Amino acid sequence: MGDTRIVVDAMGGDYAPEWIIRGAVEAVNEGAKAHIILTGKEAVIKGELAKYTYDTSKIEIKNCTEEITCHDAPVQAIRSKKDSSLTVGMNMVKSGEADAIISAGSSGAILAGGQLIVGRSKGVKRSPLAPLIPTTKGYSLLIDCGANVDARPEHLLQFAKMGSIYMENIEKIEKPRVAIVNIGDEEEKGNALVKETYPLLKECKDINFVGSIEAREIPNGAADVIVCEAFVGNVILKLYEGLAKMLLGEIKKAVMSSFKSKIGGALIKDSLGELKERFNAKTKGGAPLLGLKGLVVKIHGNSHNEEVKSAIFQCINFSETGVNAKIAEKLSEEQA
Amino acid sequence: MGDTRIVVDAMGGDYAPEWIIRGAVEAVNEGAKAHIILTGKEAVIKGELAKYTYDTSKIEIKNCTEEITCHDAPVQAIRSKKDSSLTVGMNMVKSGEADAIISAGSSGAILAGGQLIVGRSKGVKRSPLAPLIPTTKGYSLLIDCGANVDARPEHLLQFAKMGSIYMENIEKIEKPRVAIVNIGDEEEKGNALVKETYPLLKECKDINFVGSIEAREIPNGAADVIVCEAFVGNVILKLYEGLAKMLLGEIKKAVMSSFKSKIGGALIKDSLGELKERFNAKTKGGAPLLGLKGLVVKIHGNSHNEEVKSAIFQCINFSETGVNAKIAEKLSEEQA
Repeated sequence: MGDTRIVVDAMGGDYAPEWIIRGAVEAVNEGAKAHIILTGKEAVIKGELAKYTYDTSKIEIKNCTEEITCHDAPVQAIRSKKDSSLTVGMNMVKSGEADAIISAGSSGAILAGGQLIVGRSKGVKRSPLAPLIPTTKGYSLLIDCGANVDARPEHLLQFAKMGSIYMENIEKIEKPRVAIVNIGDEEEKGNALVKETYPLLKECKDINFVGSIEAREIPNGAADVIVCEAFVGNVILKLYEGLAKMLLGEIKKAVMSSFKSKIGGALIKDSLGELKERFNAKTKGGAPLLGLKGLVVKIHGNSHNEEVKSAIFQCINFSETGVNAKIAEKLSEEQA
Repeated sequence: MGDTRIVVDAMGGDYAPEWIIRGAVEAVNEGAKAHIILTGKEAVIKGELAKYTYDTSKIEIKNCTEEITCHDAPVQAIRSKKDSSLTVGMNMVKSGEADAIISAGSSGAILAGGQLIVGRSKGVKRSPLAPLIPTTKGYSLLIDCGANVDARPEHLLQFAKMGSIYMENIEKIEKPRVAIVNIGDEEEKGNALVKETYPLLKECKDINFVGSIEAREIPNGAADVIVCEAFVGNVILKLYEGLAKMLLGEIKKAVMSSFKSKIGGALIKDSLGELKERFNAKTKGGAPLLGLKGLVVKIHGNSHNEEVKSAIFQCINFSETGVNAKIAEKLSEEQA
């Protein structure tokens, strides 16, 4: 299999272009089977690349004159800023010049560009944003955390199928356990959406549905694929991030509060390192937009080189396992 | 002001009756200005009370022959088990024989009993369940975490008013900052419910509305009153609980993983104690059902004596500050 052609939006994110470009170079230097296309202001990118030694045949630059910022209205920006690093990259994925695009830029613009430029595969009603969240058992896929709120039951059913294909192929989990976020574990509980969706999931033969999951059980890894409507998914994702950050911060404060506890803190530092790393969500790649005609991966706005590198390896894995093709096949079947 | 008459459901909860009754006795022995009515099987309660020394004029027993369990369908249980410790207690609040009821029993039955037996105050469209959640700045009121999902904008507006009255009177916060849970902080973001509710909150003169709050900011104490629909509130509350428990558990595991870190753990134990206590949510009282004709307080199913005691003091505070009357006055005004 040849190199996966991956656009990296060099201008998107809090630490662009410096740390974004550094991540791309590191991936190449660590043997990523990828051909990287950096989109953005050529002079700036050239200046950054000049800092490193790498196989220059593996990284090319696609010059663009515009940038989309977080202050732009997403849909409008995608439509009007035709020469932005994000729009140009998205169009390369659409035309087949690239297999994937990674961006740490405006979330709204990434989601809009995925739908409007790259486009959904046949049969896919909505393209969900599906990050992996850390649990005591490993990682669970939280689907959907995107911007299309007020989903219908048939959307959630498709999310369940797409999420299952993802976890089976990328995370190598056999028969991933699918659960729907609910406020109790009985079938008759929940809001109107959950009540209507539950029987669809229960009857679906393509997935291993294990029933409702209460939010309390999510951190325990009680399901591999956690299905929910985007508003709820967004709340879960953001609260996960905020609460983990806050608790780790409060622990640090407690440790620094006395001489005795400072010494204690020094002694547990190594053991806590792995935990902190997982909860700082710096290494488990980006969140893919599933069900599109190409691969779009959103990484956190505050991403550094590590996240970019990790997302590049994730794109290669995604591309080599043919997840998008499998999703398109499964969901277009349904239409027939 | 005379003693607050508080029913304590002696049969509800994982640690009933032993630890529930112990909490009631301790409250009395610590000088609570309360008259306690323990509802449940008289012989059992007598046996427990015999273990303690206390002012016997402060605690009475109301014998009941039935119990509502978590396996009972809530509404049906409230209607059919007329001689259960919960139903009898609720009826005492309704008739005015008691000012308040505290229960660690079936959440569904407590919520159903509050609405069906005690009843909503005039003008109150829905009675929200409003727990306090820990933040870096103290506590925020999360309203609504109850069982009535799929709320309408006018319900959320009332929640905002009730929550403000609560935080002003009970937590003594001047002009409590009210925010609505959203997936971005711009006014035009959100699902249909949030978009319709936002202008109502913005125009409301009775509250100090500060706009949207992303779930990420909740642990930072970015608002005092956090308004949301019950499904979302439930997810936030349960995730808070589950994630805090999981993280503290993982930290413990990390500390126990080596000899060096065990010593470190022993040195930071005291400093971490306060944090653990706050996040184990053992001491900040129960969650009141607001807007009823009497006071109904739900405490966690796994409550011990500390939670019962804390809820008793909370009921006294609630009763003495006249929060329910203030809510009834404010919301009935609106109707006029």
